[in-house]
Amino acid sequence: MEKITSVKNSRIKEWKKLKSKKGREKHSLYILESWHLVSEALDSNQDVQVILTTPKQFELHNEELINYSKEIIEINDEIANDLGSTITPQGIFAIVGLPSSNIIENENIDGSWLLLDNIQDPGNIGTMVRTADAAGMNGVIFGEGTSNQFNPKVLRAMQGSQFHLKIIEGDLNHWIDKLKENKLPIYGSELNDEASIYSDIKPSRQFALIMGNEGNGMQKKLLDITTKNLYIPIKGNAESLNVAIAAGVLMFHLQK
Amino acid sequence: MEKITSVKNSRIKEWKKLKSKKGREKHSLYILESWHLVSEALDSNQDVQVILTTPKQFELHNEELINYSKEIIEINDEIANDLGSTITPQGIFAIVGLPSSNIIENENIDGSWLLLDNIQDPGNIGTMVRTADAAGMNGVIFGEGTSNQFNPKVLRAMQGSQFHLKIIEGDLNHWIDKLKENKLPIYGSELNDEASIYSDIKPSRQFALIMGNEGNGMQKKLLDITTKNLYIPIKGNAESLNVAIAAGVLMFHLQK
Repeated sequence: MEKITSVKNSRIKEWKKLKSKKGREKHSLYILESWHLVSEALDSNQDVQVILTTPKQFELHNEELINYSKEIIEINDEIANDLGSTITPQGIFAIVGLPSSNIIENENIDGSWLLLDNIQDPGNIGTMVRTADAAGMNGVIFGEGTSNQFNPKVLRAMQGSQFHLKIIEGDLNHWIDKLKENKLPIYGSELNDEASIYSDIKPSRQFALIMGNEGNGMQKKLLDITTKNLYIPIKGNAESLNVAIAAGVLMFHLQK
Repeated sequence: MEKITSVKNSRIKEWKKLKSKKGREKHSLYILESWHLVSEALDSNQDVQVILTTPKQFELHNEELINYSKEIIEINDEIANDLGSTITPQGIFAIVGLPSSNIIENENIDGSWLLLDNIQDPGNIGTMVRTADAAGMNGVIFGEGTSNQFNPKVLRAMQGSQFHLKIIEGDLNHWIDKLKENKLPIYGSELNDEASIYSDIKPSRQFALIMGNEGNGMQKKLLDITTKNLYIPIKGNAESLNVAIAAGVLMFHLQK
């Protein structure tokens, strides 16, 4: 097994750049951290090109890596700290090819979808993808302004759910049109009580739900083109719900 | 207005210690950060003893502080950074007396209650209190092992909801007994499908819901003394839901 011992090694320096969007696009790669995510990527046949592991992590997982035929490189704790995005990295990483395409043919944009309009917080985004997976949604569409799906903090919060459903990045106007062509009802979410109470909507197998920015909610121009806009009545004195909690309540109610 | 200009000032040094449980207990005080929380504390008649503010924050809020008759002290950005628990503190703080008692008479432990069993993450805890408020719950009971309610990160995530409902710290066994005496059904939460599906439970105005530790769930000995244990069916391939999301789905379903 090859060994890299210095944080100044040129490959390490390049891989470190995968933490930024610019670096990921330049190399068409991204970096995954922790055994849980690495093993999920392997199990779901992602394009894992290199595995970087400390001796300790290799000892823990070498049986599970026995069928992995590409490059495995030994690194030390210092390099793990350099590549990692957590305070105490586990010590195992995968360098993975970016999925080549977001194209889904018309006939596949079916079932139930979560659309993210300008969501900022990586933790909220990741938690929503994880919740969409648990609720049995077919996919999540990341609209413009929403943090990138390969951002290390988003990756961490998704906990591997990105491999269980479809993830698309794109213009929400375009995708709302496509969803409408397929006769899916499009539900927006609003903070005011002029919208419809969510619990009055009958659960179904086909729908799209749009969640908006943490502070400002959904864009007005999108609220205008939905089938219906929903709100969750606030019974106490809280000003609002966290967006990921609201998405959870809505998805678990709407999904049949 | 008095001015403090050095982080080495003895009062600043004491107030900084309020970030730890030991410091809070020694002084019977806690520290609140940001105008939103300071104003919520004032509005809900908390024992605000001192307000610390940068000149900029004072200018923004001096009209709202006009009726505040206790000590207001001007601080600078360096002191704000020292006292704050965020990367870029707003520059306004309140030093508040710890509520003297968690005692609630029998006749008041009524309505709907959220019980936290060994929840670790301050963000999860705060979000659950905020969600409990939004769902119209009467109070939250922090069981042993759950992060402290005056931890700065918990305070931040609660977003002032702690002033809208009752917060109790104590032994969950004791409180479950009290809730049972008052005829409230006690719902535990489980990760396995031997429990009852939550959506089969009829919403009501009176119940208690217990959420368990992020990794290990609820303590076995508590699961054994509930009225019923509930689970949320996972439809996709996610291993679990985030505990705060699960709590949100359950509270918004159970609460009438």
